Amino acid sequence: MTNSDLDKITVNGDRLWRSLMDLAEIGAYDDERTGLRGVNRLALTDADATGRRQVIAWMEDAGLSVRVDRMGNVYGRREGTDPSARPVLTGSHIDSVATAGAFDGCLGVLGGIEVVRTLDERGIRTRRPIEVGVFTEEEGVRFGTDMLGSAVAAGRLSLAYAHGLTDRDGRTLGDELARTGFDGHADVRLTPPYAYVECHIEQGPVLAENDVEIGVVTGVQGISWQEITIHGRAAHAGTTPTRLRADAGLAAAQIIVHLRELVDSGEYGDLRATVGHLIVHPDLTNIVPARAEMTVDLRNPDDAQMARAEEALATFLERLENSGPGLSLTVRRMARTAYVPFDEGVQKVIAQAADDHGLEHISLLSGAGHDAQEIAALCPTAMIFVRGEYDGISHNPREYSTPEACAHGVDVLATALLRLANQD
Amino acid sequence: MTNSDLDKITVNGDRLWRSLMDLAEIGAYDDERTGLRGVNRLALTDADATGRRQVIAWMEDAGLSVRVDRMGNVYGRREGTDPSARPVLTGSHIDSVATAGAFDGCLGVLGGIEVVRTLDERGIRTRRPIEVGVFTEEEGVRFGTDMLGSAVAAGRLSLAYAHGLTDRDGRTLGDELARTGFDGHADVRLTPPYAYVECHIEQGPVLAENDVEIGVVTGVQGISWQEITIHGRAAHAGTTPTRLRADAGLAAAQIIVHLRELVDSGEYGDLRATVGHLIVHPDLTNIVPARAEMTVDLRNPDDAQMARAEEALATFLERLENSGPGLSLTVRRMARTAYVPFDEGVQKVIAQAADDHGLEHISLLSGAGHDAQEIAALCPTAMIFVRGEYDGISHNPREYSTPEACAHGVDVLATALLRLANQD
Repeated sequence: MTNSDLDKITVNGDRLWRSLMDLAEIGAYDDERTGLRGVNRLALTDADATGRRQVIAWMEDAGLSVRVDRMGNVYGRREGTDPSARPVLTGSHIDSVATAGAFDGCLGVLGGIEVVRTLDERGIRTRRPIEVGVFTEEEGVRFGTDMLGSAVAAGRLSLAYAHGLTDRDGRTLGDELARTGFDGHADVRLTPPYAYVECHIEQGPVLAENDVEIGVVTGVQGISWQEITIHGRAAHAGTTPTRLRADAGLAAAQIIVHLRELVDSGEYGDLRATVGHLIVHPDLTNIVPARAEMTVDLRNPDDAQMARAEEALATFLERLENSGPGLSLTVRRMARTAYVPFDEGVQKVIAQAADDHGLEHISLLSGAGHDAQEIAALCPTAMIFVRGEYDGISHNPREYSTPEACAHGVDVLATALLRLANQD
Repeated sequence: MTNSDLDKITVNGDRLWRSLMDLAEIGAYDDERTGLRGVNRLALTDADATGRRQVIAWMEDAGLSVRVDRMGNVYGRREGTDPSARPVLTGSHIDSVATAGAFDGCLGVLGGIEVVRTLDERGIRTRRPIEVGVFTEEEGVRFGTDMLGSAVAAGRLSLAYAHGLTDRDGRTLGDELARTGFDGHADVRLTPPYAYVECHIEQGPVLAENDVEIGVVTGVQGISWQEITIHGRAAHAGTTPTRLRADAGLAAAQIIVHLRELVDSGEYGDLRATVGHLIVHPDLTNIVPARAEMTVDLRNPDDAQMARAEEALATFLERLENSGPGLSLTVRRMARTAYVPFDEGVQKVIAQAADDHGLEHISLLSGAGHDAQEIAALCPTAMIFVRGEYDGISHNPREYSTPEACAHGVDVLATALLRLANQD
């Protein structure tokens, strides 16, 4: 028996899987497009609140002491043997997009609880406390800013800013916290933990392409979200000569096409650009759109290339605004995160744990944003990626990781947490 | 006194204006964008039904006998001296787009009633009956096919087709006729009138540019409406490499940009192209759109050029579908009308009436569709255009024609109807 076998633990994969499937029932819906059962659990809706109460019940069953902070972030704490030692934190989120699967975020939260259950069963005490966190509105779908709960916990965004954010119906996040009973009293600013490890599905095709089970995440690429509103002039489709039009819908289309040209040019590194939200007003067949509203989601693993891509977009918008009379554009910054490199020491602990479990692993960058990139501002942080099927499709009811893949990821999480929690 | 002065009549412009303003109160709303009071009276909504009942009350006050046909088209009839003579028909519609003004359609209906009032006041009997028609769903905004009521009355579309059309909430036109009490019993197929004259605001800038009050309309340009649905694949904005995407929103944008290129090429005559309706699904910031739905409104005064433009679009759609895996497009024809030339004899009666009223006039083509283009299949038809302010903006609360312009247009209508109704 080697040294590392002494502190290698294996979780109960069946129990983990059952909790994933049980949680997926909360907010479940029949997805017409895929014919599958999907999850719709937008942050601080009734479904999310029900899910949160279920997670808290599981935390309490596992003996964790639970606190809720003023952002609705939930922490379950397992005490260590050294009362003065800073805790090792794990976790993720359970809010979802409107057309989600069962795994995004949930694997990290339920995986953390499964680690605690396993430690309890084995009678293992750790030197440091272990905490499992559930962060509010990671998706950013409802209130427009992603990684919101963890960003406030890490101090990047203020509580007042977050509480004042509104959903499309004008309801504030603060009111929705109160309505759902998740306006907790714990201080929202997180005391820096000793380390943070988050287990998450990859949401991409890289692990499957490389035929490995485990990804050791080296960092998170930069993310830029902007909302562009274009004001043109409503006009009758039949009687208004083309030269007299200020067509907000056409301008939006030109922006979308230009963004793809920026990507395809190869001049902005590994840039990804997505326009996911787009509406026109008044949205009638025979009226030139008077207004268009769209979001632009840019990703780039290189901050300088990201800045250049943003600048290229801004230049195009300016040119568009000056291209004819009657068009005006406003741009609102929704979110902007720089490239976040993860801690090499924590990455090494994860890689060693995977090795000790006999699991092949590769290092890779995260394409999606995660709570870990916020908590990384407070303490050494890294992530474990679990392989997904179907090209790693996510934010879709087809999202799927096998029970084995989930169990393997949480095995690595358990061993990594155990080792970090016993470090001096 | 010349011959033509013997049968020249002038209506009560104040009374006409009051009825326009009174009708505009039904379905009125405060338009945030313009700060003006607008009209929202989509076909067969409660507002439209209230408006119809008001118009019927005015018809009955003016001594008209009212019938409602199975499409909800309303006709008010003033008998002539010759019981066997076919009637002269006038009219238009009172349904509106969602962000309308007070004049579109209403001027033709209320103008017709005002002509009858004036004839009554002067004790003038005509040889032929005069009928004032109100056609259902001219705008096509609610049920997707414009000039619907007049098209069924003229026999171009079937009653069953029209009754089966659904709005965005899945309600059928047939059910909405019954719900509002406008499922009348009169035969929907209109017995060919002797002639049809429709007075309408221009909805364009030509009369104002030429500084004349009256337009004698020579015909209506061809209109093509298509709905394009694009199916792509939902994908995570951060993790899905660009080459693996099937972005339905990007495809929609490429279509919109291409349509403008077709227009700007000058190769398709006086083509106008508008994408007024555009939605993406799931419409979330960080998800590549899985589906997009859009309408394409093409106008062309030349049928051959229109056909070539439609073909160019179809070719582009095919190329788009074949440009990468995962994209599929479906096209649904919503409406298609050929160029409709109006009757030269009726145009001459209108031009002579304008001359006799001392009103300058020009001949012009209509850019918008009108009920007249359907009724033109049944009898000699032409239209009178009334000048609009602000470049003739329409389908917008800023739509405005002065009281004088409206009165002048209806003076010409009155004199033209009187002369046509006394023809052998």
